[in-house]
Amino acid sequence: MNQDYIIPNEWSIIEEGFNNERIKSSESLFSIGNGAMGQRANFEEHYSGDTFQGSYIAGVYYPDKTRVGWWKNGYPEYFAKVLNAPSWIGINVIINGEQLDLYACKKVENFRRELNMKEGWLSRRFNATLQNGTEISVNTKRFLSLDLDELGAINYNIKPLNKDAEILYQPYLDSGITNEDSNWDDKFWDTLKVSHQNNQAFINAKTMKTDFYICTFMESQLFIDRKCILVEPNIKADANFASFSYKQAVEKGSTYTIHKFGGYTVDRNHDKDELISEATGALKKATQKGFNTLLNDQKKAWSEIWEMSDITIEGDVKAQQGIRFNILQLNHTYLGKDSRLNIGPKGFTGEKYGGSTYWDTEAYCIPFYMATKDQEVARNLLEYRYNHLEKAIENAEKLGFKNGAALYPMVTMNGEECHNEWEITFEEIHRNGAIAFAIFNYHRFTNDYSYIPEKGLEVLIGIARFWHQRATFSTDKNKYVILGVTGPNEYENNVNNNWYTNYIAQWSMTYALENIIKVKAEFSTDYTRVMHKVKLSEVEMKEWEEVANNMYFPYSEKHEVYLQQDGFLDKELITVLDLPKSERPINQKWSWDRILRSPYIKQADVLQGFYFFEDHFTKEELEKHFNFYEPFTVHESSLSPCVHSIQAAKLGKMDQAYEFYLRTSRLDLDDYNKEVEEGLHITSMAGTWMSIVEGFGGMRIKDGTLSFEPQIPQQWEAYSFKINFRGQIIKVNACQGHTHFELEGDQDLDILVNGKAVTISPNKLTTV
Amino acid sequence: MNQDYIIPNEWSIIEEGFNNERIKSSESLFSIGNGAMGQRANFEEHYSGDTFQGSYIAGVYYPDKTRVGWWKNGYPEYFAKVLNAPSWIGINVIINGEQLDLYACKKVENFRRELNMKEGWLSRRFNATLQNGTEISVNTKRFLSLDLDELGAINYNIKPLNKDAEILYQPYLDSGITNEDSNWDDKFWDTLKVSHQNNQAFINAKTMKTDFYICTFMESQLFIDRKCILVEPNIKADANFASFSYKQAVEKGSTYTIHKFGGYTVDRNHDKDELISEATGALKKATQKGFNTLLNDQKKAWSEIWEMSDITIEGDVKAQQGIRFNILQLNHTYLGKDSRLNIGPKGFTGEKYGGSTYWDTEAYCIPFYMATKDQEVARNLLEYRYNHLEKAIENAEKLGFKNGAALYPMVTMNGEECHNEWEITFEEIHRNGAIAFAIFNYHRFTNDYSYIPEKGLEVLIGIARFWHQRATFSTDKNKYVILGVTGPNEYENNVNNNWYTNYIAQWSMTYALENIIKVKAEFSTDYTRVMHKVKLSEVEMKEWEEVANNMYFPYSEKHEVYLQQDGFLDKELITVLDLPKSERPINQKWSWDRILRSPYIKQADVLQGFYFFEDHFTKEELEKHFNFYEPFTVHESSLSPCVHSIQAAKLGKMDQAYEFYLRTSRLDLDDYNKEVEEGLHITSMAGTWMSIVEGFGGMRIKDGTLSFEPQIPQQWEAYSFKINFRGQIIKVNACQGHTHFELEGDQDLDILVNGKAVTISPNKLTTV
Repeated sequence: MNQDYIIPNEWSIIEEGFNNERIKSSESLFSIGNGAMGQRANFEEHYSGDTFQGSYIAGVYYPDKTRVGWWKNGYPEYFAKVLNAPSWIGINVIINGEQLDLYACKKVENFRRELNMKEGWLSRRFNATLQNGTEISVNTKRFLSLDLDELGAINYNIKPLNKDAEILYQPYLDSGITNEDSNWDDKFWDTLKVSHQNNQAFINAKTMKTDFYICTFMESQLFIDRKCILVEPNIKADANFASFSYKQAVEKGSTYTIHKFGGYTVDRNHDKDELISEATGALKKATQKGFNTLLNDQKKAWSEIWEMSDITIEGDVKAQQGIRFNILQLNHTYLGKDSRLNIGPKGFTGEKYGGSTYWDTEAYCIPFYMATKDQEVARNLLEYRYNHLEKAIENAEKLGFKNGAALYPMVTMNGEECHNEWEITFEEIHRNGAIAFAIFNYHRFTNDYSYIPEKGLEVLIGIARFWHQRATFSTDKNKYVILGVTGPNEYENNVNNNWYTNYIAQWSMTYALENIIKVKAEFSTDYTRVMHKVKLSEVEMKEWEEVANNMYFPYSEKHEVYLQQDGFLDKELITVLDLPKSERPINQKWSWDRILRSPYIKQADVLQGFYFFEDHFTKEELEKHFNFYEPFTVHESSLSPCVHSIQAAKLGKMDQAYEFYLRTSRLDLDDYNKEVEEGLHITSMAGTWMSIVEGFGGMRIKDGTLSFEPQIPQQWEAYSFKINFRGQIIKVNACQGHTHFELEGDQDLDILVNGKAVTISPNKLTTV
Repeated sequence: MNQDYIIPNEWSIIEEGFNNERIKSSESLFSIGNGAMGQRANFEEHYSGDTFQGSYIAGVYYPDKTRVGWWKNGYPEYFAKVLNAPSWIGINVIINGEQLDLYACKKVENFRRELNMKEGWLSRRFNATLQNGTEISVNTKRFLSLDLDELGAINYNIKPLNKDAEILYQPYLDSGITNEDSNWDDKFWDTLKVSHQNNQAFINAKTMKTDFYICTFMESQLFIDRKCILVEPNIKADANFASFSYKQAVEKGSTYTIHKFGGYTVDRNHDKDELISEATGALKKATQKGFNTLLNDQKKAWSEIWEMSDITIEGDVKAQQGIRFNILQLNHTYLGKDSRLNIGPKGFTGEKYGGSTYWDTEAYCIPFYMATKDQEVARNLLEYRYNHLEKAIENAEKLGFKNGAALYPMVTMNGEECHNEWEITFEEIHRNGAIAFAIFNYHRFTNDYSYIPEKGLEVLIGIARFWHQRATFSTDKNKYVILGVTGPNEYENNVNNNWYTNYIAQWSMTYALENIIKVKAEFSTDYTRVMHKVKLSEVEMKEWEEVANNMYFPYSEKHEVYLQQDGFLDKELITVLDLPKSERPINQKWSWDRILRSPYIKQADVLQGFYFFEDHFTKEELEKHFNFYEPFTVHESSLSPCVHSIQAAKLGKMDQAYEFYLRTSRLDLDDYNKEVEEGLHITSMAGTWMSIVEGFGGMRIKDGTLSFEPQIPQQWEAYSFKINFRGQIIKVNACQGHTHFELEGDQDLDILVNGKAVTISPNKLTTV
């Protein structure tokens, strides 16, 4: 049922053969990025077939006016949209008077695309016969520089095969672009200036409403058979477009090459009046180094990323390719250098889901970044929310909460809510809990407590206040209840007492109280500053305690499980196994109401709670809950299989764990959901990483100690991963029957392996 | 808090003084209609101020492509919209070269508008001083003919007051109109032909997609001081417009008059190629009779309507005006002549709510039409649903039901669903029960059983099948439950076991079974025909019985009331009285989620069930439920106060009953909801009628006998109404202390008054 045109390869994503029906899928799969910008794998030359053009700049968005069928009070006025940015990659190619266009060629042969994950570049080659009979071979390579993150480079080569050819390269900049996704057909970009000097062109543009100023720029170098040549360009510049045309007679068998350098300078990093001079500076670096040196730098930079974050899998090429693809795309999307940025669910690979930040970041992405980068990266992600605290308080006020209660938005770009389904926007409030949990998780992993007194405590207080106000006392139950919510399982809406939500609400209040006490005792200056700011009374804290201690949790005595929500047992409890295949996926086959009243679970809900708060429950309890809920889980969210994989591994159900792993790791490569053309599922890729490290590897932090319980799927010979734990790098290499541990750094580390203390020493292989 | 510019008057709606901020409100309030067409009270002459132009033709709609923020599986592709139709009322007026435009005059004095309810016409007069200094007095009258329902007539008079004037009348037709409400800015009308002959003009147009063909037409007569004159017109006809210009020198003090006749011929009633000749025929009748004769016919026709449907109230002019306004507008909207038509919530007074038919028809309107018209009218309303049965089955199939289960749409024009909020469209399924209830109610009132074997039974079976499939067995409760619904109270969404829904579901299945047995025994030919068609097995019927007999109803032992839905008692039960006024109406002050988790009830829900199934419960039970639910009811639906008024009256709480009555009867005249400019609340007007007849009058049918328990608000001296009961007309005249009954017809009638048998005789006053 899934596509399988991607050729299995340990280090590359490879497509062979030209098929115009795959263009949009491949544009997603071969996307590249460098954390500051990213782009779909659109062709440089003109393509008249079906294509989805996309070039994105981190942090640049447009607040599109909300459009709904029926307005509900409280909807945000604007819905931030990821913006397709002015394009710098375009190179029109005219050969003997005919524009090269793969959709219009007489013949395209030998087409091959490669996304080289190890070295961080995208290449393409093909032979084409034009309508005018000219046969050519084309070879291109493109990358977005990790080192110089305002820059990208393209190497484009054409060799006439059957006759001499007059070849015209027309590299261009284009700000006359549109969004696939827009509510009102508004114009998103305002082009301010199109200019050029020497061999360089610039388009200064700004976004409407948000006033993000950017400059996109380019400069090119030309070569015949690798020898640099000077060609006098024909220059064109109009309202939204700038191009240089380099015409050259090329002998049959010779190669005419253009190196195009381009990218964006943005006012997040520079004064908006300096964008052209900064662009000139970037181009100067690029042209001085030249394409090949830049490419070598790129290889080096990627090798450093892989050095820390690679996961190897032996004996299963597709699994190896899948996990590396996930790690690659996560690094394309976010490198953690800037706390103003975050991880969009589609990264730089599409527009869907509008805003950039979901609770995915806290629930799924932070563990990956904590373990594979320096701890500043995870801290930056925490600070992103700290910086949005005021907006979260405003958001809660809009919904009727007061006194500094904070409700973080479901989807955001700048801290404001920009989602507008009432059952999600207003009710999927558990997201607030994940933001508190991430603070706990960061401290648990890094042992860096400083974040809490400095910043985290205010966030924890705002969140606790929200939960306190959101819970209501039921005289009927003589407990506090939380009514009208949507849990992580979005196949239930407006339910009462979603267990996960109630649990994380209770925990958030308790955790806030614990930290208030700790900060008071240990960081009195911070304590005074924070208390002065938030004006928290003893009475209010007592109330939190009262609510937390008397929270209601739906429970079935009969099944000995917590119920996902009130009334869950009223459903027709027919398991997924007994559901005809023809009815799945239910989100395509069933009407929404039918999904809602079914027992089917889109993504881990109670089990998500058991994942977050593992230590609060026994393994027997986990097993009961897993056995109860897994049969009803349809995993129609990309974020679901990873949690089930981890839980299955913990319960020793390795076959199931492996099955879930496969589903998550090649979700996009094999296009399970038939939608990869819209972009990749970036945030779930971090879940894939967790499936291996926390699932198979059993990595945990237990009372501050790094712990593993390694298992290995029988399909694999071995797998390895590295963990950056509190400044030391631990490499875990699990084989059938034993696991090796290696340690970088200069001092021993006590870890737990299968519950037993093991001391591992630097540069010494420890085998368990 | 409400507007009060409408002058109290027993038989007229009157506005005095020109205020351009009231224009849109008055355009709604002074709307006219004749069942076949209707129009907002837009001025005939040009008006450059804020206005909402609307002219509507019964049954003519456009399926606008659904536009939503987030698509849910099962949404209908189209959303039928009431269409603003080509306009025939326009008369441009040019006086001494200046266009008359009340928004641009130097001075407007003596402005008065009257909607004469007794005689069915709309008039307007004013004195105006134009920018060019010409002073004029203007007098207009307009009506839509009840007798000739394709026709309307306008009498427009101008008298120059301070000098002679050259006056140009330019009556025109215009098909270049737009809708206020459209999803995609599509074009709705396609003008086919603009033509004229002699003094007549025609525009043939058709709706896009739905292909309704209509012809709008006009002809005019001119007079000076009531003497017919011939003026050679200047004729203009372009793509969407046709006009005749009649220029005339008018002496100061003389009156220049135009009688304009116009209207629509439509292909619902004629061959689409005959629309012009039918229009010619209509114009011939109009011009032969002339304005004054037509007006006399109109008075006569309205006097016949009032003869049967008038309600008099003595001692309370505002209450009198309110109830007559309601009865007038109901008759503007629907006269019951055509079973292809129905009663839109805004009638012909606005575009809001798109489609025409809601469950309002069955739950609120049928009693009014049954009691004030011949029984064919109510039967036509039942047949409307019979004719849509196949579409209702298709609608259910789209949502996963099968085997002939029918789910009637929430909103419809042609039987297809055209609403798109999941919580309403998919979940407000109780509407299906109201459609079954209307069949029961019709039989109860008219004693005409023939409808059931002929048509109703198939509808009852389709509906029973739906409920059978929609209920699911809860092993936990050992009962059948109905999960994920929205009850009549739309301030709850996706709840389990809404008591009203479960109750009407149970009743619908039981009632269908009873009727199958009865039809089998008494109408065997119909039985065989129907059974052959629906293929209903004994097994399926047994299953209905099983579900009906084991339906679950949420109940509170503590409060001794049925609970509106599962979990109702978990709410914070703070009554409306304790809710700060500043927080109301909650639908404007609170976010949607807050409304949902509150205990506040938008419109009667459990009490709606007690209203429908009154005989199933004791008065004590009613009182308990009224006392429990009324304090939480915010009546933010126009359909709510009438039911509470009836229940309060039954419980002898006359002060409350009167208060609810006031709220419903002058809802639009006093613009309680600050939205009357969008149009009138037509369907709730039938509820107002019920408040008096069933509330104060206590009218019921008890075992086939007409029964009254008359009470009277202390604020009134007397009130009277008539009931057409099985061919006999009973007039009830309730005073403080006693009630008079009069009977038309030729035989005695046994009725119940306060539970006691009373025989009333024709043409004899019976006082109780």
